Amino acid sequence: MTSALLEHLRAAVGADHVLTDGDLAAYTRDWRGRRTGRALAVVRPASTQEVAAVVRACADAGTPLIPQGGNTSLSVGSTPDESGTQVVLSLTRMNRVRTIDRDNLTMTVEAGCILQTLQETADKEGLLFPLSLAAEGSCTIGGNLGTNAGGTQVVRYGNTRELCLGLEVVTPQGEVWDGLSGLRKDNTGYDLRHLFIGSEGTLGVITAATMKLFPQPAAQLTAWAAVPSMKAAVRLLGLAHRHLGAGLTGFEAMGQFALSLVARHMPQLRVPFAGMEGAPYCVLLENSDSESEAHARERFEHLLEQAIDDGCVLDAVVAESLAQAHELWHVRESIPLAQAEEGLNIKHDISIAASRIPAYVEYADALLQREIPGVRLVNFGHLGDGNLHYNVQAPEGGDAKAFLREQEARVNQLVYDAVAKFGGSFSAEHGVGQLKTGELTHYKSPVALSMMRAIKQALDPQGLMNPGCILAVE
Amino acid sequence: MTSALLEHLRAAVGADHVLTDGDLAAYTRDWRGRRTGRALAVVRPASTQEVAAVVRACADAGTPLIPQGGNTSLSVGSTPDESGTQVVLSLTRMNRVRTIDRDNLTMTVEAGCILQTLQETADKEGLLFPLSLAAEGSCTIGGNLGTNAGGTQVVRYGNTRELCLGLEVVTPQGEVWDGLSGLRKDNTGYDLRHLFIGSEGTLGVITAATMKLFPQPAAQLTAWAAVPSMKAAVRLLGLAHRHLGAGLTGFEAMGQFALSLVARHMPQLRVPFAGMEGAPYCVLLENSDSESEAHARERFEHLLEQAIDDGCVLDAVVAESLAQAHELWHVRESIPLAQAEEGLNIKHDISIAASRIPAYVEYADALLQREIPGVRLVNFGHLGDGNLHYNVQAPEGGDAKAFLREQEARVNQLVYDAVAKFGGSFSAEHGVGQLKTGELTHYKSPVALSMMRAIKQALDPQGLMNPGCILAVE
Repeated sequence: MTSALLEHLRAAVGADHVLTDGDLAAYTRDWRGRRTGRALAVVRPASTQEVAAVVRACADAGTPLIPQGGNTSLSVGSTPDESGTQVVLSLTRMNRVRTIDRDNLTMTVEAGCILQTLQETADKEGLLFPLSLAAEGSCTIGGNLGTNAGGTQVVRYGNTRELCLGLEVVTPQGEVWDGLSGLRKDNTGYDLRHLFIGSEGTLGVITAATMKLFPQPAAQLTAWAAVPSMKAAVRLLGLAHRHLGAGLTGFEAMGQFALSLVARHMPQLRVPFAGMEGAPYCVLLENSDSESEAHARERFEHLLEQAIDDGCVLDAVVAESLAQAHELWHVRESIPLAQAEEGLNIKHDISIAASRIPAYVEYADALLQREIPGVRLVNFGHLGDGNLHYNVQAPEGGDAKAFLREQEARVNQLVYDAVAKFGGSFSAEHGVGQLKTGELTHYKSPVALSMMRAIKQALDPQGLMNPGCILAVE
Repeated sequence: MTSALLEHLRAAVGADHVLTDGDLAAYTRDWRGRRTGRALAVVRPASTQEVAAVVRACADAGTPLIPQGGNTSLSVGSTPDESGTQVVLSLTRMNRVRTIDRDNLTMTVEAGCILQTLQETADKEGLLFPLSLAAEGSCTIGGNLGTNAGGTQVVRYGNTRELCLGLEVVTPQGEVWDGLSGLRKDNTGYDLRHLFIGSEGTLGVITAATMKLFPQPAAQLTAWAAVPSMKAAVRLLGLAHRHLGAGLTGFEAMGQFALSLVARHMPQLRVPFAGMEGAPYCVLLENSDSESEAHARERFEHLLEQAIDDGCVLDAVVAESLAQAHELWHVRESIPLAQAEEGLNIKHDISIAASRIPAYVEYADALLQREIPGVRLVNFGHLGDGNLHYNVQAPEGGDAKAFLREQEARVNQLVYDAVAKFGGSFSAEHGVGQLKTGELTHYKSPVALSMMRAIKQALDPQGLMNPGCILAVE
């Protein structure tokens, strides 16, 4: 049975691209190394037709398929289980940019294209592909679509979902749905595109997509502000929306403890307003201007003056050069690494309506400090989208491994219960994967879950597409 | 059986709100008067719980339900068939604005709220709800969501879909899914919201929604440009994107024949560059600025100078006052009425990638003029979104009624085949309704249709929700 399937797979993609021996850890271990599975085979098709042939072969054999892009899931969404009976379908050889349509501001790209390659491709055309996130050098656009990735530019450009106009998908039956389209309006039936986006490979395999492009801004400026409270940060967000309009392309909040970890572990980085009295948070703002750098600066200064008058900003700097702007972003982006240097920690990727974030933070901070004395909260994230990476670090000097082992489940429950209390989401950007199926069952409404299960059953009745991801196998 | 159902409905919503007698044409005839059906009853619930009770009563009785908002569908999407066995579920009594969250830039509103009321509600808060379309004084947000309505601001703010963060829906089983949410990021399972948006009431009843709000622009300016070709209009669109960035909130193209009908039937309106030699199209542009009117004007003038240098604009005016801006928009918005004054015509609501529109128009214009000599093409629309209302008027002095009777099917086929040839959509904004189910079957890929049918079957196995809309009853 298995050898017949392997023969079919070899016939579909060529023997060189059906991997069964050697070190397959790059395909079978998840990005953060939380789980290592085993694969019956790793199959690497080079075209949509090859993907379809692979899916048909697996469907015929009743063999589960795990679609995989750059394998950078933070929720264990793209690796096989330990049974050794699942096939990993790696899309990385499907990495062509099929077309760029400058007048329509779109490009059609294959699922295996690396995100950074797409940014560079757009840039060469004098255009902008705004999706930007930490894993951009490794993750693929297919994975970004499968998980509806977010990142740092969402406040202006939306999530991956909002950047996609059309998809090509291989269905669980191995048929090709050509839903590629550069149309900005198309009201002809159910929006299958949005159903596949964010479905984490459980309903079919995204093989290509038509993505939006934007004109490059004439100038981009970055500012860094010290704020007296999270409430003030939210007020600053409102002012920034009003004064910069769509110019506001980044709005990141960072707690002083998160910044102190950067200062401690990356002493070469200069952290503005580090440890400033009365300023528990700093905010990084980015202003993209279609006119000129002078205009961007003038608008930024106008905003920051208003914010200082208002009291929601204590002090602020605007980067004087591109190098300075990169430095500021680099501080922000170094927080996860600084955290890792400090030791193991419990990560959360939550979202809450911006208006309720101050109350949530006050509530959750107090709760955790009461429940787990000495716990340290590494709170930072894309406040412009209501998205916080609300991470929990072991008490200073404590045994981080023991902390994780003993406290992780409890901390998660405390945090996610608090998030639910404030109407938020336990997974803003990272998806559900295999990691958070329990949270999905617990926090999602039974009505929604029952519709999701009905849709899964309708489109993938054999249950072969990425089983155990999103919806727990029953 | 029927009387038992009526009893249940009366118990659910009160006898006063179950209409069975008198003139029910407002509920049973479609907006353009193409079809008049009969209803078993028109039921007008005032709350989500009442909607759920109505849906359960109909589900128990096996009675089809037609959800209806303002009944302004242009595709016969919200009226019953002629059998007299269907219940119209009118949402117009569910018209409360539940909450406005200024800091989160959202409002949660009930499905029966009139679009214009929502615009005014936002305005009173100093905020903008940007959805804007011809029927805004009558249509409801529930209908806008059900059909994913477009309108004039899509080039900047997207369709209704892009403006919605969360939904409350009564399922075909009469359960309430509370998916209301002001979250801008939430990756926890399949995106049911986007499945319901645009499903035209065939998968459940949208009862409320959380919608995005925006800061009001500090200034809004309108310009009118004469362009030497459709190709030039597309080039102007590219320049406008580059120079105005997200300031570009409107980009409408209008053929000179469409404008000549306005000049003929509304002689009181001044049409700039009417009939100008070498200028087959005019373009209306809107620039919304977060800074000031002076800045908006300066940016507009800069753009138009560049465009005149480039040759894609022959001449242009920028409105000097709000009154002048309204006049320009009024000319654009008068085209449908002027067309109606000229006589019956065959309407199309198509979209094509902006880059391919010039070739499409050249091809389709020549084709129609060859196939139906003397035919007159009323071409105008939201070029910024690739959306044209490519309408076909009987030859001058001809019998319009006879023309419609004899030519409508053929004209539709010529136009939609041409649209398909250029990768476009036969329904950009108006949805499928009962009117275009044949087009859906013909032009949509069988793979997509089969997934749509599977989803319909999974969520509405009894087939009671707006049957015959989108997917033809088999």
